[in-house]
Amino acid sequence: MSAKLTVGEIVDFLDEVFPQARGLFVIEEVGPLRARVRMPIDEQHLRPGGTVSGPAMFWLADCAFYVAVLASIGREAQAVTSNMNINFMRRPAHCDLIGDARILKLGRRLAVGDVTLWSEGMEQPVAHATTTYAIP
Amino acid sequence: MSAKLTVGEIVDFLDEVFPQARGLFVIEEVGPLRARVRMPIDEQHLRPGGTVSGPAMFWLADCAFYVAVLASIGREAQAVTSNMNINFMRRPAHCDLIGDARILKLGRRLAVGDVTLWSEGMEQPVAHATTTYAIP
Amino acid sequence: MSAKLTVGEIVDFLDEVFPQARGLFVIEEVGPLRARVRMPIDEQHLRPGGTVSGPAMFWLADCAFYVAVLASIGREAQAVTSNMNINFMRRPAHCDLIGDARILKLGRRLAVGDVTLWSEGMEQPVAHATTTYAIP
Amino acid sequence: MSAKLTVGEIVDFLDEVFPQARGLFVIEEVGPLRARVRMPIDEQHLRPGGTVSGPAMFWLADCAFYVAVLASIGREAQAVTSNMNINFMRRPAHCDLIGDARILKLGRRLAVGDVTLWSEGMEQPVAHATTTYAIP
Repeated sequence: MSAKLTVGEIVDFLDEVFPQARGLFVIEEVGPLRARVRMPIDEQHLRPGGTVSGPAMFWLADCAFYVAVLASIGREAQAVTSNMNINFMRRPAHCDLIGDARILKLGRRLAVGDVTLWSEGMEQPVAHATTTYAIP
Repeated sequence: MSAKLTVGEIVDFLDEVFPQARGLFVIEEVGPLRARVRMPIDEQHLRPGGTVSGPAMFWLADCAFYVAVLASIGREAQAVTSNMNINFMRRPAHCDLIGDARILKLGRRLAVGDVTLWSEGMEQPVAHATTTYAIP
Repeated sequence: MSAKLTVGEIVDFLDEVFPQARGLFVIEEVGPLRARVRMPIDEQHLRPGGTVSGPAMFWLADCAFYVAVLASIGREAQAVTSNMNINFMRRPAHCDLIGDARILKLGRRLAVGDVTLWSEGMEQPVAHATTTYAIP
Repeated sequence: MSAKLTVGEIVDFLDEVFPQARGLFVIEEVGPLRARVRMPIDEQHLRPGGTVSGPAMFWLADCAFYVAVLASIGREAQAVTSNMNINFMRRPAHCDLIGDARILKLGRRLAVGDVTLWSEGMEQPVAHATTTYAIP
């Protein structure tokens, strides 16, 4: 099994269907059933103490998993998150955040998997999410 | 048991510690172990099809629960989300979203509860979240 | 909307399809989109300190939600749990446990809802679960 | 970092504090921040169609994570599950189930991690759980 879309094809697709997110995420790699996405940090993501906020981490987890789904099933704007469970484990550093998404089950109607979030350069993950996407 | 802070006191506190969120949420009511918060919808929250995005709903759930915690324990900027599990159940309408937060357990170190999210005027909830906050 | 099956009909159905669970649970009430189920405590459910174990509480939550699904859609042995998220909040008392299940969304393919677990006679819940069932 | 207890020491400890679980699980390996536990299948774990029940899978996930915690912190009967989120992804085979637990964060008060469940000999996992343990 190989990825159905390249990084460039996914970027084009996202620019088209989510124009408001342009520039917020950088897709670093995709493969069959996985993706790595970077979120460059700017002020809008921060909370008191200078760390990345929970909603920003949720957003990165959601985006990274969506990219893994697109890489696995092709262009499908209507795939939507039906469940996300996220554990916040460590205070993120004040630097870019990386999301590593992995699909554990790709069914006809559901994709299930997890996303591990890292502050760039830290050895330990800052958050871990499991998620289910509904595929129309 | 009564709320430790009024709506006005919580608004002042949030403006001070989360200035970047000013104007994004409206606290409608607080009580002992509960809060209702409104998120006026604007373009930044939307995804294809004109519905509210998952990260925006996560943000509202997180904010509503944080307000319920503040109402219950007083001014505490460092209370942080440690877990959030959210089920997206229906497509939100293109209108304001309401979050009803309820604390089920208020311990010394953890607060556990849930948040039901509604599109204003709809009878059925659009999402439901359970969450745990760590209290320092 | 009224319940599609009575308590007696659900008991008969469960005895037929889950004979090994006979006598472990008592269905107290069912209604449209909800059910209340009691788990009489015996030694097999206990963990050190005499409290009900986590797996036993999971089992009650799962059973109560399944009963609510049966009450809502009728005899369907193949409805299965696809997700369960459970927060254990307080030490249960050494007495019967009650599970109150509520369906928040009943779709054609999924039922989503929550279950609150009580030790009989306690005012505060001991655990809270959210769950998704897949309907074949 | 090495494991604080050997497999034999953990077995002795569990026999002492959870005598009612004796013989239900086989600890296959422990290491720093991880454990592998086998659940031999017998009739009590089955549901209609001959597959392993959800509560039995929950029990294995909970046990495997508890063993990983014991291996990491030593003899501590009072460590308890505070949250478990489990996704059931595939129908288990009618054979032994294996749980691979991994601790992602070991704090002073909380351990957070995940457990992947496999039917012996299957390539794809049957379930995936994330869990938080409270450490007294």
